[in-house]
Amino acid sequence: MTGMLTIAGLGPGDEALVTPEVSAALAEATDIFGYGPYVARVPAREGLVLHASDNRQELQRATEALRLAAAGRRVVVVSSGDPGVFAMASAVFEALEAAPQWQDIPIRVLPGVTAMLAAAARAGAPLGHDFCAINLSDNLKPWPVIEKRLRLAAEADFAIALYNPRSASRPEGFERALEILKDAGCVNRIIIFAHAVTTPEERIDTLALRDARPEMADMRTLVIVGNSSTRRIGRWIYAPRRAS
Amino acid sequence: MTGMLTIAGLGPGDEALVTPEVSAALAEATDIFGYGPYVARVPAREGLVLHASDNRQELQRATEALRLAAAGRRVVVVSSGDPGVFAMASAVFEALEAAPQWQDIPIRVLPGVTAMLAAAARAGAPLGHDFCAINLSDNLKPWPVIEKRLRLAAEADFAIALYNPRSASRPEGFERALEILKDAGCVNRIIIFAHAVTTPEERIDTLALRDARPEMADMRTLVIVGNSSTRRIGRWIYAPRRAS
Repeated sequence: MTGMLTIAGLGPGDEALVTPEVSAALAEATDIFGYGPYVARVPAREGLVLHASDNRQELQRATEALRLAAAGRRVVVVSSGDPGVFAMASAVFEALEAAPQWQDIPIRVLPGVTAMLAAAARAGAPLGHDFCAINLSDNLKPWPVIEKRLRLAAEADFAIALYNPRSASRPEGFERALEILKDAGCVNRIIIFAHAVTTPEERIDTLALRDARPEMADMRTLVIVGNSSTRRIGRWIYAPRRAS
Repeated sequence: MTGMLTIAGLGPGDEALVTPEVSAALAEATDIFGYGPYVARVPAREGLVLHASDNRQELQRATEALRLAAAGRRVVVVSSGDPGVFAMASAVFEALEAAPQWQDIPIRVLPGVTAMLAAAARAGAPLGHDFCAINLSDNLKPWPVIEKRLRLAAEADFAIALYNPRSASRPEGFERALEILKDAGCVNRIIIFAHAVTTPEERIDTLALRDARPEMADMRTLVIVGNSSTRRIGRWIYAPRRAS
C-alpha cells in the first residue's frame, strides 16, 4: 500500500459545510490526526485509527502523521475551517522541512470554509471589500508584530478578521487589540462577534467598536472589525463595493 | 409560497468543493441568478429558471433577484468561490438598502471555498500566517486606494492575495501592483500564480517576485505574494508559523 498524507479542513462546525472532497478523503483514511475536538467530528468506523492530541502539539502531531504516511498508511490531518489558515498545513510543511527522508511522500491539502467566511456570511457581507486576517493567539509571534499589523491594517482601512481573539496562550491579547484599534481611529467602526458559528451554540453580536468589551470574545469567537464604510441595513452588516 | 433569497458560493470550480448546504439550496431553488459562467455550473432541471447576466451588472442582477423573491420565488444568487469575498453578497445588500419595501424578505448567505484558499492549498500553505486580500479589478475603487493598501500590506509583512489581477475593467492594474510591491521591498518574496485553480486547466507557477511579469496573470488567475518568511520545501510553498 502506498502511503499518503492529506491535510483537510472540516469547515467551521456544521457538517453541511464539509466539502465532498474532504468527506471522501475521510472515508478512505486509515488514520486521522488532529486536535481532540476536531478528530471527534470524524465518524468512527472499523479500521480507522483516531489520533487525538492537545492543541499545543502541532509539530509533534505533524511529524507523527508523516511517519505513518511514510510507513504506507493513508493519513488525514484534520483542522477546523481551512487547514491553511492558522491551522495544520504550515506545521506539516515545517515538519517536512526538518525530515528530508520524507520529502517524497504524496501530500495534498484540501481546502475548507474558514471561520471568517462563515462568520461573515451570518452577519451579511463585511468582507465584501479588501480585508486582512490576523491571528491573536499565536505564541510564536511577538506582540509588537501584532500591534504593528493592527495599526497598519487600520490605516489601510481593511476590514479585519481576528482569529483566536482570546486563546489560552494569550488571553490578554484581545483587550490590547481593542485598545490599539480605538487608538488607531476605529472607535466608530462596526465590530462583529461570531461565537461558535454554524453550531447550535451560534451567537452573532454586532455593535460599535467603542462599546466592545474584551469578555465579549472567548475561545470559540471569531471577530470581524468592519472598514470605515461598513454599513448596517436591518439585521445585516455589509461592506459596500465602493471605497470611501 | 413564501419567497426567499439565498446568496450562495459555488467554490472555485471543482464540484467536489461545493458544500452540501449549497447543493441543497440549488436543488430547492426556482430561480438562479448570476454571471453566465457561474449559472452554467448549476445543473438544469424542469421548473428551474436560469437568469444569466454579464459580470458588470451586479446591482441590476441583485435588484431583480430581490424582486422575484418578494414575489414568492425561491431565488439563489450564485457567485464562484465565496459570495462574501468580492462577489454578489455586498451587491445584494446594496440593492436591499435602496429598496426598503423588500427588507423583510428572508435572506441567507451560504459561504463557499474562496479562490485564495484553493490556490493556497494547491501551493502548500502560503496563508498560514497573517495575510490580506485585495481586489485589483474593482472599478469602484480609486487607484490611489489600491496603491496605499499594497504599500501598507507590504510594510505589515502580510502575505497578500490579489483577486482579479488582470480584469477587463482594469487590465493595467497588475503591472502597477507589481511595480509598487517591488518598490516596497518585496523583490525577494515568493509569488504564486494560480490559474483556473481546481479546474482541468489548473496551472500553478511559483517564482521570485522580481521575476514576475504582468502577462503571467490573466482573468482566471489568483495571485498570492508570500510574506518575507515564506519558504519553499520541494514543490511546496509555506508560511512558517513563527514570525520573522
